Amino acid sequence: MLYTEIPTHRPITPLLDAIDHPQQLRLLERSQLEQVADELRQYILYAAGQSGGHFGANLGVIELTVALHYCFNTPHDRLIWDVGHQAYPHKALTGRREQLTTIRTKDGLAAFPTREESVFDTFGVGHSSTAISAGLGMALARRYQKNPCEVVAIIGDGAMTAGMAFEAMNDAVAHNADLMVVLNDNDMSISCSTGGFAKHLAAIWESGQSVNISETGEAYLEPHPEWNYNSRLHSSATDAADNLFKAIGFDYFGPFDGHDVNQLVQVFNALKKRQGPRLIHVYTKKGKGFIPAESDQIKYHAISKVSAVSSANSAPKYSDVFGQWLCDEAAQDDRLLAITPAMCEGSGMVQFAKQFPTRFFDVAIAEQHAVTLAAGMACEGLKPVVAIYSTFLQRGYDQLVHDVALQNLDVTFAIDRAGLVGEDGPTHAGAYDYAFMRTVPNMVIMAPKDENECRQMLHTAYLYSGPAAVRYPRGNGVGVEIQQQLSVLEIGKAEIVASFNEQYDEQISILAFGSRVTVAIEAAQALAQTHDVGVRVVNMRFVKPLDEQMIAALAPSTNLFVTVEEHAVMAGAGSAVNEYLVQAQIVKPSLNLGLPDTFMHQASHAQMLQQAGLDSKGIEKSIELVWLKLMETVSS
Amino acid sequence: MLYTEIPTHRPITPLLDAIDHPQQLRLLERSQLEQVADELRQYILYAAGQSGGHFGANLGVIELTVALHYCFNTPHDRLIWDVGHQAYPHKALTGRREQLTTIRTKDGLAAFPTREESVFDTFGVGHSSTAISAGLGMALARRYQKNPCEVVAIIGDGAMTAGMAFEAMNDAVAHNADLMVVLNDNDMSISCSTGGFAKHLAAIWESGQSVNISETGEAYLEPHPEWNYNSRLHSSATDAADNLFKAIGFDYFGPFDGHDVNQLVQVFNALKKRQGPRLIHVYTKKGKGFIPAESDQIKYHAISKVSAVSSANSAPKYSDVFGQWLCDEAAQDDRLLAITPAMCEGSGMVQFAKQFPTRFFDVAIAEQHAVTLAAGMACEGLKPVVAIYSTFLQRGYDQLVHDVALQNLDVTFAIDRAGLVGEDGPTHAGAYDYAFMRTVPNMVIMAPKDENECRQMLHTAYLYSGPAAVRYPRGNGVGVEIQQQLSVLEIGKAEIVASFNEQYDEQISILAFGSRVTVAIEAAQALAQTHDVGVRVVNMRFVKPLDEQMIAALAPSTNLFVTVEEHAVMAGAGSAVNEYLVQAQIVKPSLNLGLPDTFMHQASHAQMLQQAGLDSKGIEKSIELVWLKLMETVSS
Repeated sequence: MLYTEIPTHRPITPLLDAIDHPQQLRLLERSQLEQVADELRQYILYAAGQSGGHFGANLGVIELTVALHYCFNTPHDRLIWDVGHQAYPHKALTGRREQLTTIRTKDGLAAFPTREESVFDTFGVGHSSTAISAGLGMALARRYQKNPCEVVAIIGDGAMTAGMAFEAMNDAVAHNADLMVVLNDNDMSISCSTGGFAKHLAAIWESGQSVNISETGEAYLEPHPEWNYNSRLHSSATDAADNLFKAIGFDYFGPFDGHDVNQLVQVFNALKKRQGPRLIHVYTKKGKGFIPAESDQIKYHAISKVSAVSSANSAPKYSDVFGQWLCDEAAQDDRLLAITPAMCEGSGMVQFAKQFPTRFFDVAIAEQHAVTLAAGMACEGLKPVVAIYSTFLQRGYDQLVHDVALQNLDVTFAIDRAGLVGEDGPTHAGAYDYAFMRTVPNMVIMAPKDENECRQMLHTAYLYSGPAAVRYPRGNGVGVEIQQQLSVLEIGKAEIVASFNEQYDEQISILAFGSRVTVAIEAAQALAQTHDVGVRVVNMRFVKPLDEQMIAALAPSTNLFVTVEEHAVMAGAGSAVNEYLVQAQIVKPSLNLGLPDTFMHQASHAQMLQQAGLDSKGIEKSIELVWLKLMETVSS
Repeated sequence: MLYTEIPTHRPITPLLDAIDHPQQLRLLERSQLEQVADELRQYILYAAGQSGGHFGANLGVIELTVALHYCFNTPHDRLIWDVGHQAYPHKALTGRREQLTTIRTKDGLAAFPTREESVFDTFGVGHSSTAISAGLGMALARRYQKNPCEVVAIIGDGAMTAGMAFEAMNDAVAHNADLMVVLNDNDMSISCSTGGFAKHLAAIWESGQSVNISETGEAYLEPHPEWNYNSRLHSSATDAADNLFKAIGFDYFGPFDGHDVNQLVQVFNALKKRQGPRLIHVYTKKGKGFIPAESDQIKYHAISKVSAVSSANSAPKYSDVFGQWLCDEAAQDDRLLAITPAMCEGSGMVQFAKQFPTRFFDVAIAEQHAVTLAAGMACEGLKPVVAIYSTFLQRGYDQLVHDVALQNLDVTFAIDRAGLVGEDGPTHAGAYDYAFMRTVPNMVIMAPKDENECRQMLHTAYLYSGPAAVRYPRGNGVGVEIQQQLSVLEIGKAEIVASFNEQYDEQISILAFGSRVTVAIEAAQALAQTHDVGVRVVNMRFVKPLDEQMIAALAPSTNLFVTVEEHAVMAGAGSAVNEYLVQAQIVKPSLNLGLPDTFMHQASHAQMLQQAGLDSKGIEKSIELVWLKLMETVSS
């Protein structure tokens, strides 16, 4: 069935309603599975409309999910969903159907599979390309334990471009592991897939035949004159005669129509009888069955709630501020090249890609390569900008150290989604970048207090002739005017942005970083109104190099230093301040505010900040507590 | 010519002596190249004997290096050597011949290509698998600049198993980049190559034919009935009919005999005329021409100086302590599995691999996969141990965060080569692991003061039911007795290991971590002898969780806290102590000693520690300076 609207009322789904455990699915006749899939599709449409969230990928794997839980004895058999933003149907079939409308909300279902949520979620995900490694670990463990089960890793064609997936396939063959990999080929990661691998998949498709398997387990070639080539990327460079999966040592089957639930059931049942590493190539369509999503797959990667009111915050998103800066800087400096690991839309680069196609490099999901590619470009005198989410830069960390910083190369890192990220939860939090970057020599690290400063910092980082990073938060700016004129900030220079109750001898100095500057000012004001104490707020701007002069200048008149940042308090920016105070032998009471030493569950960004005590009220309370204690000590 | 001994006198090399720039090589007749290669081989044998260092890989690429510099217009054309431990012939041909005997020593040539050493070193290396990314960056940059040149990345078959190389190949095809990749296939990384990729290369070889190219640029198939299959790994799973490189979209040529300098010249000249991504597959032999090295390639991966006297330190290496512990623990717990990313020998796992072959997993150069494989195994109730060098764990950082720590899985990290590493220089320093690990929730991090504590800490980490790391230095222990009995240390518990001049009111508390405990005791003793001050030394043992009780207990009687560690002072263990002092409102003078915020050039490990002020004398002096200043302030 095809749908054109997201239902606002719960659809009628009698077969689905009877499935609270996949065992109940497995009791159905094979002929009923199409109806189950249809009901599931309707229900997912409805539920995603209620909750918002990932969309296209989930509609694309409805039949696949039904077939997998029908053929495999879950949870005894292990299904590992790569990335996991396509796991809504899986959640619906494994006892979480009615909770699906709560997905991605505080105390609701997680956006991705998580081990603590369900025994059916065999491996927690969020980042891509981990499923084959994890599945191989399980398969080898079960072999060693002499307690075999079927292990099936389901991975998208986009995720497979990440080197980690290749490493895992290489190793699976080394061990002749009993592992099934389902390649869910929808010709898309989140943006369009790119590169030799995508062309190869297209070439296989264009060969017009599939490797099928009979019920008795024999492989045979099946011609497909009906395949419609117009719908897909065209290969040019690669030859379907050379099959990459067979070359690496996998048994290869497919491609199959991933929306033909009956064929999928037949294929999985036949392949269960085989051993060794097997790859089953299925093609699916993102947004399948929902007409608007089928025709605009990028837009419908994720959706907002049907009932959502438009956000009160009309300030531009940081991603868009970055995108605009990128275009402006590129227009005046033709040495600028921009690199994204498959996050063109998310990073705000659509306009740049259109305007400067020869200077835009989407390298696929390949963070390691993205960073070293930039290093290579910088060696030739160009000025690459790597746009990357904080959490994904963890994938390119060694390359940042070994290829960029060690050679002091001129690479600018535009680090998006730094800090807490809200609904995507702990897998996507960017809570560690100060720590893992500031320990590296040659790095310059900045964090803007608002969207205008973000623009000027990007310009500053860009003009700086070594490795420099600007890290900015998810979401919207604070609503200040953005100066079109690009101006350079002095490296390592902070600014005092507020000063309340200057008349008092007792003074608190709040050293605030990035997104916490504005709320720190609010907290300072509140403190100054309720206590007889002066409170100054410094926008530190630079985590490295720190403005040591500023701290030293404030020290004589400061009774309490407070640092505040949207980053783990451990090893973060506040920790850098402590190090300076120690080094300069400035012995003063201090307070470091930042994220706690736990992985925080998903909620809205604002809820999470409040939970961490990093909203203005939380900051005020924390400072007040320490201040009162300090005064007590002094007076006693 | 074949050699059986390392010459102790400089060989006579008239052709080589005349080459101070590859331009002079290019003036020679093609017929003279064999002699150049022979002279170069003799000279490398001699020079490596003088300096010690990497060996087998260099002998394997003599002809390749001669052919490359003969055919390509270096340095205008770009050669990028992957890993770089095979770059001695390259250094010898590019103006550094006579300095080659100084390689890997203080102020001598670097172990690897480095940009600051020579314009011919286009990209600094040390870690593997970066060359295709860097080369692609250069090729795309030059295309964009409309200033084309030939770009050639030379990469080993071992290095190509790392996913990063696959990411780069995928992207090179996306851009149809003008890039040559020379696959130097010696059937070895440092250990034996493993996995589907190695089998695939063997299958290509076993096909008994190569894809050759004529002088006019036409490709043709050439049969090779003479190939000797006994010398190589045998394929079983993969089919040479499916060529992986062609599948991904590269033009493929080879395999060729990498020791036939004339054929290499013909091939490179013919391939220069082609465009787009090309892969040239050559097979070489590690240690070629030196009989002992040809027959034991692992032993001759690197050698010591001919003149080297055996080390005065007879204490066991930390790697061997790890290896012995691994065997002992495995013997009493059959849930233990051990994983190495291609570092079986370096990590001390040879005995384990022999004794427990079904529990030993060499996953090839694939750090990302290694960590997530362990996560998958842990999900099935096993207890994997990942043995990895500190510097290479940077490659698996996201997997440590996202796949292990976030799920609080029971994985033990045995982190070798932590701190400075001496001759290998800055690329291999393990200076950042405290910082990038301690910021991550759920991690337990330990550092042993000696080889016995290392053993007990490994046992402690192993029994701990979440992610735990033990980081230990390169080289030998301090010479204490090793208790065979395995005992568990209390998590987060430090110990006072020395206390001098307890009678004084004034006290310095040195909180020492890992390898710096022993020297801190020496420093403390010296200080106590020359100043009227008590000095206590605490072996902190745990970087996370820190023994806060210990610090709190010492605080009232401490006038100066000193932290000392073999790790970047930024964001390191001392920084963790600062954070606690701040949090506990303990306001005291402190001093953080650790590695400076620079990449330190190679020298011996001892020289580097001295340079960093982390030997006992340096520690003593640093403390003395601060202490005297402090006393001055108090008395003034």
